Amino acid sequence: MRGAVLHAPGDVRVEDRADPRIEAPTDAIIRVSAACVCGSDLWPYRGIQTMDGPAPMGHEYVGIVEEVGSEVTGVRPGQFVVGSFWASDNTCEICLSGYQSGCVHRVGMGSLGSQAEYLRVPLADGTLVATPEVPPAELIPSYLAASDVLGTGWFAAVAAEAGPGKTVAVVGDGAVGLLGVLAAKQLGAERIIAVSRHESRQKLALDFGATDLVTSRGEEGVARVKELTGGLGAHSVIEAVGTQESMTQAIRSARAGGHVGFVGVTHDVSLSGLEMFWSLVHLHGGPAPVRRFLPELMELIGNRTIDPGRVFDLELPLEQAAEGYRAMDERRAVKALLHP
Amino acid sequence: MRGAVLHAPGDVRVEDRADPRIEAPTDAIIRVSAACVCGSDLWPYRGIQTMDGPAPMGHEYVGIVEEVGSEVTGVRPGQFVVGSFWASDNTCEICLSGYQSGCVHRVGMGSLGSQAEYLRVPLADGTLVATPEVPPAELIPSYLAASDVLGTGWFAAVAAEAGPGKTVAVVGDGAVGLLGVLAAKQLGAERIIAVSRHESRQKLALDFGATDLVTSRGEEGVARVKELTGGLGAHSVIEAVGTQESMTQAIRSARAGGHVGFVGVTHDVSLSGLEMFWSLVHLHGGPAPVRRFLPELMELIGNRTIDPGRVFDLELPLEQAAEGYRAMDERRAVKALLHP
Repeated sequence: MRGAVLHAPGDVRVEDRADPRIEAPTDAIIRVSAACVCGSDLWPYRGIQTMDGPAPMGHEYVGIVEEVGSEVTGVRPGQFVVGSFWASDNTCEICLSGYQSGCVHRVGMGSLGSQAEYLRVPLADGTLVATPEVPPAELIPSYLAASDVLGTGWFAAVAAEAGPGKTVAVVGDGAVGLLGVLAAKQLGAERIIAVSRHESRQKLALDFGATDLVTSRGEEGVARVKELTGGLGAHSVIEAVGTQESMTQAIRSARAGGHVGFVGVTHDVSLSGLEMFWSLVHLHGGPAPVRRFLPELMELIGNRTIDPGRVFDLELPLEQAAEGYRAMDERRAVKALLHP
Repeated sequence: MRGAVLHAPGDVRVEDRADPRIEAPTDAIIRVSAACVCGSDLWPYRGIQTMDGPAPMGHEYVGIVEEVGSEVTGVRPGQFVVGSFWASDNTCEICLSGYQSGCVHRVGMGSLGSQAEYLRVPLADGTLVATPEVPPAELIPSYLAASDVLGTGWFAAVAAEAGPGKTVAVVGDGAVGLLGVLAAKQLGAERIIAVSRHESRQKLALDFGATDLVTSRGEEGVARVKELTGGLGAHSVIEAVGTQESMTQAIRSARAGGHVGFVGVTHDVSLSGLEMFWSLVHLHGGPAPVRRFLPELMELIGNRTIDPGRVFDLELPLEQAAEGYRAMDERRAVKALLHP
């Protein structure tokens, strides 16, 4: 089969890879309907995250089940399925508490490489959720978004305790931040302040439910959020970048007793214990337990309540994956969808 | 009046101070029935926290109302009152959300010095809670504990979401940690693991409701908590020290999706963003909003459900305050009560 492989920073190639096969009786093989490039794929692409030799790429996927292992009972060949970027058993104590991304048997899908024609999904019963029927093509991007960016933005909004009566600030205008806006809106937030300096992203944020825009970052961004919230700060802050500046901005934008939900991968970020202490904020985040939210999100997509697929502003054949990486790296695209 | 003043690290003297007087119509003056020395008083006493010249000491207090300002309607002369170590209006949006320690008008009581015969309490209506009648002498230590250490341990347990079915680990065996054990027990925790290497503190922890003891700190302490929790870590962890080691131990002792409530003043503590990310824990803490819990705690003390005053293992006349500091600094005493 064909699949994307990162050989070195900046060097993504689509090449022949071995067809995946059932390795454990709990595996499934899916034919990938669509995959995409994630902001976190840019870490190794930019050389910020080191790599040991060529690596298959991609951890977001939707597809049609081709084959299942002998112990798989929850999905069957021919079904359209969505899975999280973590494979999880969905039966351990951690999964049952809603933290499937901390599953004691979790497998990171990134190591298997979903930017390909076929994909092996471990722990298929715990990981995959099928739609009632194969959906029309126009819904594919939204289901694909559910696999990571929507689920991650949703988790950030839940971690930030976005809800009725709340003012939510969103730091980060990538796909996750934009879908954090959508999630906050769906969760009933009263006011949603999107931090963005990019016109096209601002527009999407407004379409997704943002009520206010802040165009400054850092301390100026904090000051603007405070101005908009009677000097107190937001009840809920979504952090969807993962830098020192964005985390600091997020924590300082929250009021005493407020909640910060952070989902940006916090490379090289250090938090002052004393600042956390005096801030009185709640901090929660990490790799999103997307599986917790998948059934609900897939229903909202299926009945066309939400349209998260709009974050894909570039669609390419899998063979042109390298252009998808380049476009996102250069911020020409918010998120690139790949058709195998 | 007589009052304790810190002149330099290690140099606490009880000397004549000006009698406090009503300065604002919202003030009250109380005759202090009992005050005490806090673990946080040891920071400047040990020279770890710098000071600008001599400072009156103490922020924990119970007493009899002597005089109230013209706008005070909630308490009256002759009543026995307990107040938090933060004076708060209890009417602002932050107070109403339960974060009185983040009140927009808050005043730190430490600057006023409760280790004295009399004390001015700002924002008396928002800060002080009166008992139905003047309590018997044997309950005074427990009411005094409510002013800070009990309220702080309780907040830590609430922040850690201690409750039915939960396993709670408590890092720190000072008065706050021990009362965190008591709080977790009252909140219905199923299992309470106290981390302590001191026999007398272990005994008090067991009396307060601890079900397990861990005697190792750092990574060994983390490993012991994991062993006791099927490899997963505790659902809830109370951090009541404030050092790099104790915060790290607390975060690593919690399971994915678990909650860490931290109330130790985190001097010189730095948290790795990436470790927080992968831990999937909830982190919440800071200066405890004791006022939120005071009515409930005072009722539990008044009806003798709890006996938090047992953390005072040294009682001294105010004139011997210096010995109270020495005994706590040398860990000869858990907590010293001072009688003016």
